[in-house]
Amino acid sequence: MTIPELTDVHAAWLPPEAFRAIGARRALVRGDGTLAETVHAEVARACERYGGSVRRTGDGPSDLVLALSAAEALPAVAAAIRDEAGPAGAEGYVLARRDGVTVVLADDPAGLLYGLFHVVRLGEPAFGADRPVERHRPATRRRMLDHWDNIDVHPVMGQVERGYAGGSIFWRDGVLRADLTRVRAYGRLLAACGINAVAINNVNVHAAEARLLTDRLGEVAAIAAELRPYGIRVHLSVTFASPVALGGLPTADPLDEDVRRWWATATERVYATIPDFGGYVVKADSEGQPGPFAYERTHADGANLLADALAPHGGVVHWRAFVYNHRQDWRDRSTDRARAAHDHFAPLDGRFRDNAILQVKYGPMDFQPREPVSPVIAAMPGTRLAVEFQVTQEYTGQQKHVCYLAPLWSEVLRFGPWGADGPAVADVAAGGGLVAVSNVGDDPFWTGHPLAQANLYAFGRLAWDPRLDPAAVLDEWIGLTFAPAAEPLRRTLHAMMDGSWRTYESYTAPLGVGFMVRSGHHYGPDVDGYEYTPWGTYHFADRDGVGVDRTRASGTGFTGQYPQPWSDVYESPGRCPDELLLFFHHVPYGHKLHSGSTVIQHIYDTHFAGAEQVAEMRTRWDKLDGSGLVEPALYARVRELLGEQLRCAEEWRDQINAYFSRKSGMPDAHGRRIP
Amino acid sequence: MTIPELTDVHAAWLPPEAFRAIGARRALVRGDGTLAETVHAEVARACERYGGSVRRTGDGPSDLVLALSAAEALPAVAAAIRDEAGPAGAEGYVLARRDGVTVVLADDPAGLLYGLFHVVRLGEPAFGADRPVERHRPATRRRMLDHWDNIDVHPVMGQVERGYAGGSIFWRDGVLRADLTRVRAYGRLLAACGINAVAINNVNVHAAEARLLTDRLGEVAAIAAELRPYGIRVHLSVTFASPVALGGLPTADPLDEDVRRWWATATERVYATIPDFGGYVVKADSEGQPGPFAYERTHADGANLLADALAPHGGVVHWRAFVYNHRQDWRDRSTDRARAAHDHFAPLDGRFRDNAILQVKYGPMDFQPREPVSPVIAAMPGTRLAVEFQVTQEYTGQQKHVCYLAPLWSEVLRFGPWGADGPAVADVAAGGGLVAVSNVGDDPFWTGHPLAQANLYAFGRLAWDPRLDPAAVLDEWIGLTFAPAAEPLRRTLHAMMDGSWRTYESYTAPLGVGFMVRSGHHYGPDVDGYEYTPWGTYHFADRDGVGVDRTRASGTGFTGQYPQPWSDVYESPGRCPDELLLFFHHVPYGHKLHSGSTVIQHIYDTHFAGAEQVAEMRTRWDKLDGSGLVEPALYARVRELLGEQLRCAEEWRDQINAYFSRKSGMPDAHGRRIP
Repeated sequence: MTIPELTDVHAAWLPPEAFRAIGARRALVRGDGTLAETVHAEVARACERYGGSVRRTGDGPSDLVLALSAAEALPAVAAAIRDEAGPAGAEGYVLARRDGVTVVLADDPAGLLYGLFHVVRLGEPAFGADRPVERHRPATRRRMLDHWDNIDVHPVMGQVERGYAGGSIFWRDGVLRADLTRVRAYGRLLAACGINAVAINNVNVHAAEARLLTDRLGEVAAIAAELRPYGIRVHLSVTFASPVALGGLPTADPLDEDVRRWWATATERVYATIPDFGGYVVKADSEGQPGPFAYERTHADGANLLADALAPHGGVVHWRAFVYNHRQDWRDRSTDRARAAHDHFAPLDGRFRDNAILQVKYGPMDFQPREPVSPVIAAMPGTRLAVEFQVTQEYTGQQKHVCYLAPLWSEVLRFGPWGADGPAVADVAAGGGLVAVSNVGDDPFWTGHPLAQANLYAFGRLAWDPRLDPAAVLDEWIGLTFAPAAEPLRRTLHAMMDGSWRTYESYTAPLGVGFMVRSGHHYGPDVDGYEYTPWGTYHFADRDGVGVDRTRASGTGFTGQYPQPWSDVYESPGRCPDELLLFFHHVPYGHKLHSGSTVIQHIYDTHFAGAEQVAEMRTRWDKLDGSGLVEPALYARVRELLGEQLRCAEEWRDQINAYFSRKSGMPDAHGRRIP
Repeated sequence: MTIPELTDVHAAWLPPEAFRAIGARRALVRGDGTLAETVHAEVARACERYGGSVRRTGDGPSDLVLALSAAEALPAVAAAIRDEAGPAGAEGYVLARRDGVTVVLADDPAGLLYGLFHVVRLGEPAFGADRPVERHRPATRRRMLDHWDNIDVHPVMGQVERGYAGGSIFWRDGVLRADLTRVRAYGRLLAACGINAVAINNVNVHAAEARLLTDRLGEVAAIAAELRPYGIRVHLSVTFASPVALGGLPTADPLDEDVRRWWATATERVYATIPDFGGYVVKADSEGQPGPFAYERTHADGANLLADALAPHGGVVHWRAFVYNHRQDWRDRSTDRARAAHDHFAPLDGRFRDNAILQVKYGPMDFQPREPVSPVIAAMPGTRLAVEFQVTQEYTGQQKHVCYLAPLWSEVLRFGPWGADGPAVADVAAGGGLVAVSNVGDDPFWTGHPLAQANLYAFGRLAWDPRLDPAAVLDEWIGLTFAPAAEPLRRTLHAMMDGSWRTYESYTAPLGVGFMVRSGHHYGPDVDGYEYTPWGTYHFADRDGVGVDRTRASGTGFTGQYPQPWSDVYESPGRCPDELLLFFHHVPYGHKLHSGSTVIQHIYDTHFAGAEQVAEMRTRWDKLDGSGLVEPALYARVRELLGEQLRCAEEWRDQINAYFSRKSGMPDAHGRRIP
């Protein structure tokens, strides 16, 4: 096992410097298995660089012990901690420092790996004063990234659908890359933040990519081999029509015996090739993808078909709940896309196999900067649900804008679907997992915008522990990425990033109404861009007011999909939180918000403020010029992108303000210039 | 010379049947030269088919004499007519019937060819009663089509920019087509309606196409060889940056001696290869194309550079006046794209060489269904101006909608820039020519929509004679294309097509305001699609009113670019013609039109009516089903497209009405449903 090192790619949150504290120590690594070898190799590499030492056996003194609990002849201090702490649990680890020795114990090698990265995060303080016993376990078993990578390059969309960081790190020119070092380096980064599963291809499965399941399976195996040393299992997006498209069967009917046999055989072959294969991801009956509706079967029938094929091998199917009518008549105000997932799936609760995981987007629409939490999350107690986020910034600035998304995800994860005192979204997701669309491509900074790396890092950390504070996670990321991170840089990055999601929200579509973006590519403002389209994404602004009436009283009834208290809170324009007002209600421009402002004045104020905040961001970054605190290439890339963000934020400000000023006829209370 | 015959391509307006009257006669063709050979071959081919005979010499009896005036030993009747009629003039012909002989006389072989096609148009009546002497001459020397064909296929735009009829008839898979029969057939169709010049490639000249001027010149020569027998000269779009891009010079400065030499040499090579080469077409400093501005030179400098290179060979340069700022700030209401061509070019009047033709779009914007006539046309008496139309239906339904454009062109050509009593646009254009962007591609019907053939035909006919009545031209086209055209079909086509441009106008952007189309591809409605873009195409609708104030009194001053009376007529909202009201004025929705209606009610009424008229069109066409009056493939294609037109017209109706209803809050006086 060699640690991947890339010379022409940014090290992200694992620069050599991040391993200095470990690399300068005497370490003992005890335990067997692939991941224990990885732990040893990581420590050995660090020691080579910083003068420490590592051994696998023997007595001598140690500053750091990383050991499987079951390992024989543990040093006394480690054995004592083991006996005191009890089992660490799957993927978990116990951490303590006593008698000058930092000890990490785990029941399985994966836990050992995560424990190692915990020590990396701690850095020098890991070797300071004594530390009491801490026990760490992931909140959920599956912490997953979905890649929307294609093998082939689309002339307009590029190779990665909704990808803003170049081409795929897996494929190039229609074939698997010859050098997969970068894939292993990617796995390493992911393990360091807690990810343990990756679906490697786009959920919109085109012809070439469909064959990854069959005659191109070797490519999946090659990727799996690179990710395995970092504890990451590979999953595959498959097309529901595979039995027809690949198997030559006349049908893909989930209840057809030949179809079931086909999937069973295909899946056997997959596991014969990749024994630790994770499972399938399916987008069915959605935006043109095939699915069980064509055979008048339910989505439970569809998901269970694949679950049954995977079950003998311990695999799971992630079945996406993103099903809606994307050919809606915009004239028809009774159809409500927000209702669709609940309408389709809630009645199926209890009918999914145990290894079928229903993957639900966090909001009822589609990864807008602000949506209510999806009511599906509270509606299916008899189903394993995974909650899906979007690390790739499709609707949040496309990795041209600084938009640190952890505060959004944290808000969702902490949200109580049955009220503040009940279980949180994170508790529901614990049974199914957390999934996010990756923001990575073959860009030298991995993510286009260097600061967008923080989103990838933070998603992994929140998937491991949803209770983490987003600002603290950011601080970790800064400490690792810019190690050693000087205080002025740390302060600058917090000032730029902590509130950047709310800044983005403030200069884009107001008060939760969403979708005021250029159609197709979704970058930049176009207030009416989706207003007269079949996509079900409307704001219904007229000269008197704006917003979507989703009440039971007079609207689409969507509020009725929520349990109490939200069912009533969202129903009432007086109780509905300001930030979601226009998602649930059509109100006059003069409507008073809880904040004391009116809807129209709120629109003006937030849009002026949002653009100003971006200008401040840029000023802060500019002050780093010549400071030597960040490398010149990274400095320059961020500076250039901040220019674009400011241009775009001003464009948002002016278009949104002009649109509503022209429509409402209402002046800005502060008399600012609206074009 | 063989007459091109294509088995898998529609015959358009030259089906064999159109030659029946000629083919059944005894004809004499007198004269030499390529075009006289073509005339002979055409008559011979018809006679083969319909039992007549043709000879080049000898006495015997004739029903039809086609002869150069200078030919020796003319039959007596022809000699008498010649003496009586006098010279026919360049490309002209004399036509008469006397003593049972139909006589066509011309001074040059081109005139003979056009005379032949006149007899084709007449059909059987050409051989009926005696006809007095008629003299026919083209109104202008250059009647030209611009092809926006590329060699390479753009992944989104396709091969032909703004082409709606498939790929290029010249190139395929990056190379010249091996079989150019279709190019010759195209030339034949064009000659039959009076076209005599074709620019074969896109004015946006990309890398591959730039080389047509140099190492790919052989391809131009091959196309020229196919078009030559039908009297059509080939022109080439070139990039102003050619000396840099192709010649390796450090500059393309029009006053640089090396640059001038480069152009002179390149042009010599062209004429050595293609002695009857027509000249160059240039789009400079426009939408990203290079031009003289980069060297702080004027467009006269730029045009004269090429004119000087072409002059020794008798060539001309068509220099497009379509120059404007396409990166305008939409917030800036003082900049007016409509002013741009006049602002740029009017001061240069008198500074262009005599073989530099300034090619001016008919309207100040860009081929909208309704624009005022460009003020440039009245502003440059010392410059040869060509007026440019768009046969390809970029903004007029993209050959999915029936939109017979001859009435639009006729209106423009008859328009008096100095008032009804002064010279017309056609008179100005007589000195420079008429040019249009072709609507032809490799589609089996040539033009996608079979009825769009009529536009191509009509452009040629109006270029030959701008005083022709559009309905009469359509009647000609029907008579030829569907020969023998049964009366019910004739009536149906007139009912569908005569008013189709006004129908299209009625369901799209109202009252001349333009550009309420989906950005980029320009198909279908998007009222705000261009409202907040850099393209300079705005409507400024707010809750109180709509339209662009282009007055001198309070607007951009564009009205001041017109001479009297239009300068005052357009300035006054009370005198401005209804159909151009919103082009020149921003008025309240309640503004009373000359028609007696208000702006808002006019919007509602025309949009309901427009969609209804399309429904009627479809009903009329449906009635032809099973009649046998049109071939099944053509029937089916038109029927399918009418379905799309109706869908789209209803979408226009509903989006435009909904937009203005939401914005104005004003109800429809007739209480119809507005979504």
